[in-house]
Amino acid sequence: MIKAGIIGSTGYAGQELVRLLLQHKEVSIEWYGSRSYIDKKYAEVYGNMFQLVDQTCLDDNMEELAEKVDVIFTATPQGLCASLVNDKILSKVKIIDLSADFRIKDVKIYEEWYGIEHKSPQYIEEAVYGLCEINREDIKGARLIANPGCYTTCSILTIYPLAKEGLIQMESLIVDAKSGVSGAGRGTKVGNLYCEVNESIKAYGISTHRHTPEIEEQLSYASGKEVIINFTPHLVPMNRGILATAYATLQKKVSYEEVKSIYDKYYKEEYFVRVLDKDAMPETRWVKGSNFVDINFKIDTRTNRIVMLGALDNVVKGAAGQAVQNMNILFGLPENTGLQLVPMFP
Amino acid sequence: MIKAGIIGSTGYAGQELVRLLLQHKEVSIEWYGSRSYIDKKYAEVYGNMFQLVDQTCLDDNMEELAEKVDVIFTATPQGLCASLVNDKILSKVKIIDLSADFRIKDVKIYEEWYGIEHKSPQYIEEAVYGLCEINREDIKGARLIANPGCYTTCSILTIYPLAKEGLIQMESLIVDAKSGVSGAGRGTKVGNLYCEVNESIKAYGISTHRHTPEIEEQLSYASGKEVIINFTPHLVPMNRGILATAYATLQKKVSYEEVKSIYDKYYKEEYFVRVLDKDAMPETRWVKGSNFVDINFKIDTRTNRIVMLGALDNVVKGAAGQAVQNMNILFGLPENTGLQLVPMFP
Amino acid sequence: MIKAGIIGSTGYAGQELVRLLLQHKEVSIEWYGSRSYIDKKYAEVYGNMFQLVDQTCLDDNMEELAEKVDVIFTATPQGLCASLVNDKILSKVKIIDLSADFRIKDVKIYEEWYGIEHKSPQYIEEAVYGLCEINREDIKGARLIANPGCYTTCSILTIYPLAKEGLIQMESLIVDAKSGVSGAGRGTKVGNLYCEVNESIKAYGISTHRHTPEIEEQLSYASGKEVIINFTPHLVPMNRGILATAYATLQKKVSYEEVKSIYDKYYKEEYFVRVLDKDAMPETRWVKGSNFVDINFKIDTRTNRIVMLGALDNVVKGAAGQAVQNMNILFGLPENTGLQLVPMFP
Amino acid sequence: MIKAGIIGSTGYAGQELVRLLLQHKEVSIEWYGSRSYIDKKYAEVYGNMFQLVDQTCLDDNMEELAEKVDVIFTATPQGLCASLVNDKILSKVKIIDLSADFRIKDVKIYEEWYGIEHKSPQYIEEAVYGLCEINREDIKGARLIANPGCYTTCSILTIYPLAKEGLIQMESLIVDAKSGVSGAGRGTKVGNLYCEVNESIKAYGISTHRHTPEIEEQLSYASGKEVIINFTPHLVPMNRGILATAYATLQKKVSYEEVKSIYDKYYKEEYFVRVLDKDAMPETRWVKGSNFVDINFKIDTRTNRIVMLGALDNVVKGAAGQAVQNMNILFGLPENTGLQLVPMFP
Repeated sequence: MIKAGIIGSTGYAGQELVRLLLQHKEVSIEWYGSRSYIDKKYAEVYGNMFQLVDQTCLDDNMEELAEKVDVIFTATPQGLCASLVNDKILSKVKIIDLSADFRIKDVKIYEEWYGIEHKSPQYIEEAVYGLCEINREDIKGARLIANPGCYTTCSILTIYPLAKEGLIQMESLIVDAKSGVSGAGRGTKVGNLYCEVNESIKAYGISTHRHTPEIEEQLSYASGKEVIINFTPHLVPMNRGILATAYATLQKKVSYEEVKSIYDKYYKEEYFVRVLDKDAMPETRWVKGSNFVDINFKIDTRTNRIVMLGALDNVVKGAAGQAVQNMNILFGLPENTGLQLVPMFP
Repeated sequence: MIKAGIIGSTGYAGQELVRLLLQHKEVSIEWYGSRSYIDKKYAEVYGNMFQLVDQTCLDDNMEELAEKVDVIFTATPQGLCASLVNDKILSKVKIIDLSADFRIKDVKIYEEWYGIEHKSPQYIEEAVYGLCEINREDIKGARLIANPGCYTTCSILTIYPLAKEGLIQMESLIVDAKSGVSGAGRGTKVGNLYCEVNESIKAYGISTHRHTPEIEEQLSYASGKEVIINFTPHLVPMNRGILATAYATLQKKVSYEEVKSIYDKYYKEEYFVRVLDKDAMPETRWVKGSNFVDINFKIDTRTNRIVMLGALDNVVKGAAGQAVQNMNILFGLPENTGLQLVPMFP
Repeated sequence: MIKAGIIGSTGYAGQELVRLLLQHKEVSIEWYGSRSYIDKKYAEVYGNMFQLVDQTCLDDNMEELAEKVDVIFTATPQGLCASLVNDKILSKVKIIDLSADFRIKDVKIYEEWYGIEHKSPQYIEEAVYGLCEINREDIKGARLIANPGCYTTCSILTIYPLAKEGLIQMESLIVDAKSGVSGAGRGTKVGNLYCEVNESIKAYGISTHRHTPEIEEQLSYASGKEVIINFTPHLVPMNRGILATAYATLQKKVSYEEVKSIYDKYYKEEYFVRVLDKDAMPETRWVKGSNFVDINFKIDTRTNRIVMLGALDNVVKGAAGQAVQNMNILFGLPENTGLQLVPMFP
Repeated sequence: MIKAGIIGSTGYAGQELVRLLLQHKEVSIEWYGSRSYIDKKYAEVYGNMFQLVDQTCLDDNMEELAEKVDVIFTATPQGLCASLVNDKILSKVKIIDLSADFRIKDVKIYEEWYGIEHKSPQYIEEAVYGLCEINREDIKGARLIANPGCYTTCSILTIYPLAKEGLIQMESLIVDAKSGVSGAGRGTKVGNLYCEVNESIKAYGISTHRHTPEIEEQLSYASGKEVIINFTPHLVPMNRGILATAYATLQKKVSYEEVKSIYDKYYKEEYFVRVLDKDAMPETRWVKGSNFVDINFKIDTRTNRIVMLGALDNVVKGAAGQAVQNMNILFGLPENTGLQLVPMFP
């Protein structure tokens, strides 16, 4: 039995971790951390957990936690994990950080895009970027996992095979992404009120969204050249789901079959990546509640571009689900343990 | 391994059965029946099932099916199950009928409210009304289960303890219920289009909804007197969920604790019925995707009435989940096998 | 040209007042009051007003305002209007108060249900309850209008004719109401976030909602006896709209035609009250954006009850629209001036 | 008084025409055409029109209609207007066609993208593309107006000034558009059911959507070179609204002020085009129910691209509103007559 502690268990990602871990046969949750709700019953913060979770929320004491558990999930605001982690902790426990603190290798880029000082840059190097399908081998032995962002997971997995195989002009890449509202978190802001979001769509953070450098870094590794992209996120009136629509110019004429075979080369054996049948395009409703990423593409011969599309549930594969997938890898469990969730529709 | 066949597997309730049974360790689905989609791949009808279900849809041949499986679920329009079932079939296989065909003991009432002739009234008597928490013992030995309606499950479980204990004046009972749109099924009607339902609420079937006599019959058994109620269903712009708000005059002055102890008497040991803490009122978001029914009440001393509230997921406890629960009972499995689903939020 | 000032112009009701008054040919808005956004451009608070409103928000100075305008609308939290109003102000300007401060004649009931001390009870007596269809004559000469609540407008207009004519047993009356989320205002609370409200329905304030005594008082006047009711509001995932479903026992057997003729007696000449054709039941989508109230009823001979239904747009007829209607009456304009808004669908 | 007839008055665009024309002081609707609902009361098809429209639906007899009215709106499926129009009709009445029949000058492109034969190509040449802000002068004297598509209006107005001024590389242009569900019409298809659309986003018609050649043609005129673009529409769970996010490579380095001055050059005097303040990005909620198009842009110096965004209400400026705007121009009325609608929020 893996003992798990969650710091930041009362945000949407933290709560989803609870949902997934409660249904995971090999894990027991030992610590429901939540600075905002200390001493409050967890089930009073999230009514779905009534009679399923009896514990009350605890403070974010990572040192104490490191003594008690085998793995710590930090589903906390940027900067917190970096400020808490130290050698002693890392020697005792695995850390899976759902924040951005250890995702970006160049600390200057992190500090520039996030606008905060990094409190433990010495661990950036060893941290493994936990995009499981791509970095599986490195994850196995890691102490500190940087769990990828939601937009980034969707964007990278959608584009990765073509970037890796040099099929697209990387400088032409544009990612237009659309997210449900849970991605904005449970903080109270006018902009997240029901009436403000419902019946509307908007772009935000155009050219400045923090997931941009994360996508760029990973696609640079994949393509072997420095990648700079346009990334535009949009807010969609729905609870869950991300759809990424990516555009790139093709390096040469290719057929559907050629591109399909490239996607299959990378994903045929991947349980969580579903490359759809021809002409079936990803829709977020088909992955809701699951750890799947659905991917497909369309070649436009008129413009010599390819349109790549990916859909996932931002709270699962885009956050908590991938964190559990990382945990499974870290502890030598079959990767889909506790994650064989059939997408819930409608 | 229980072999299961589903007739009507491409409606919303049928699809939810597929979702639940795929995650049930003791069951394999052998037959995806769907008259509308014969020979079409199931995963083309429901994209969430891509790579999870390889089978194609088959015709509704109950005789053939009875040879191949241990249990047949009929998630079909009213009248179909009654027209297909016969002695030979019943001797070979358990039938769990999600339609209304065998829910009402008085065939005249059935024919009056449903406007169709009952094709096999000879099986009504032996059919067991599959409201598990109430009829558990009878279900165990049954051949034919009448799986209760969604509104009815919610309404009856909410009211049952007080009706049974004689705490409320049954003739004063009014049930005002609210349902998500999946309850209307996947049929194409103008009234079910997105733009027609979204951003609106309406009542429908006032005093004439077919679940009325079903609620009345069961509450008559509970209370020992003939019950006639006002039942008003409403359509709410959300996918899943039913909330029932029931009003009744109290027979006498009672305290919160007295009423709470009555609810506890009936439900304390029930895994799927959660009587909430004082002042926490049921909300459909807390049961979504799960087989739970959340229940609570409020005594209004000014009017000497009690307001009873219940919430469930109409596709799970209101249909497919309860069907699986019935199956578990029929086959001697722990009742929550495959149903320990943590409600999904948000 | 009527000069209008709005105190509390940046709440949802205040903003709707702006929308309506901008389209009203006889009114100019002279004062956009908003304590929260002083000196901020109004169009930055509500982007729909870009290039339509150039003004910036001003403080809530009612004395100064009284010098400048002919009518003041207070769309403010409970208690504010009562704390600002005085003889001097009332001698110069008409006040239409959208809060509850002057709705309830018995100050003790007000203080008990609202939990605050009333700061100017001396004006309660003269204040006119601005339910236009019922108190039109009294409104004409008033200085201070208590603009009715949203739930109350809907509930009272739905029930009024039958209460007035003694057709229903008032002690049997139950009102089960459903509201869109704009009724909760623009304040930032976890409970009003998109993900918390979307895909869910809940009851709240059961037996304790503040609109209860307001409905009771008005229906007591109508029926000539003290009325105590059960009132249960529900929160529905939609922006606008209220549907009230009211239940009462009939005093005697009545036909559809008899009841219809009673409704017609009161509402046939009313522009804003639409008693629907037989069997067409009110739906909030058909009144959205307009000042209409749609009403109909269903007699249930089985239970000897009548179900009365009413639908309106809570921000229009339930707040800002009725306020404008009151203003029209106060200033001798045709009552529907600026309010002939065709409901917007979808 | 302009007498108007509507063919196809019971689709969403037709119904919106009714809403707008009822509020237009210079127009009376003489003919509510609807092949599907002949002899049915219009207000039974759209309940919002109860007591506002007494007429019943009539057949699509354009010849008869031409005798009775001054202007005919055809809000009908592709091909119908082209099959009905003839010299006699055109000599008597103005026609504003909301379908695509006369939008594209090259009949081969029309027939290829729409998959139908054009029945009256002889009128294509004289038909004026009714994008009012651009073709105002030509519209004035026209007999036949091709009212632009919803996506096209939004896309073209967003891009036009920069295309016209040669600021962007036209071959780099990509339009990623997002639409509410009313754009899909009132036809009954599984894909448009509430539960299928709600809580999901998808792309559709990638590289094949029929609005593509329409955008391309108009932007070719603007830029003076043949334009081929990537256009990807997406379906968003909301009733109304289109957001277009367009990407293009800049021809040279430009400042915010330079680009802003170009937009102002074209739109400063336009009532219906609102170029927002710096950093305020278009959101569909701010234009809902109105004829406005909100536009803004963001220069990305990292990629040397500009992101242009436009938002409108697809049923108003994207269909019925622009049709009324065209009518106003045709009949010499101030262009915003009957269209000074304040956007409705929330």
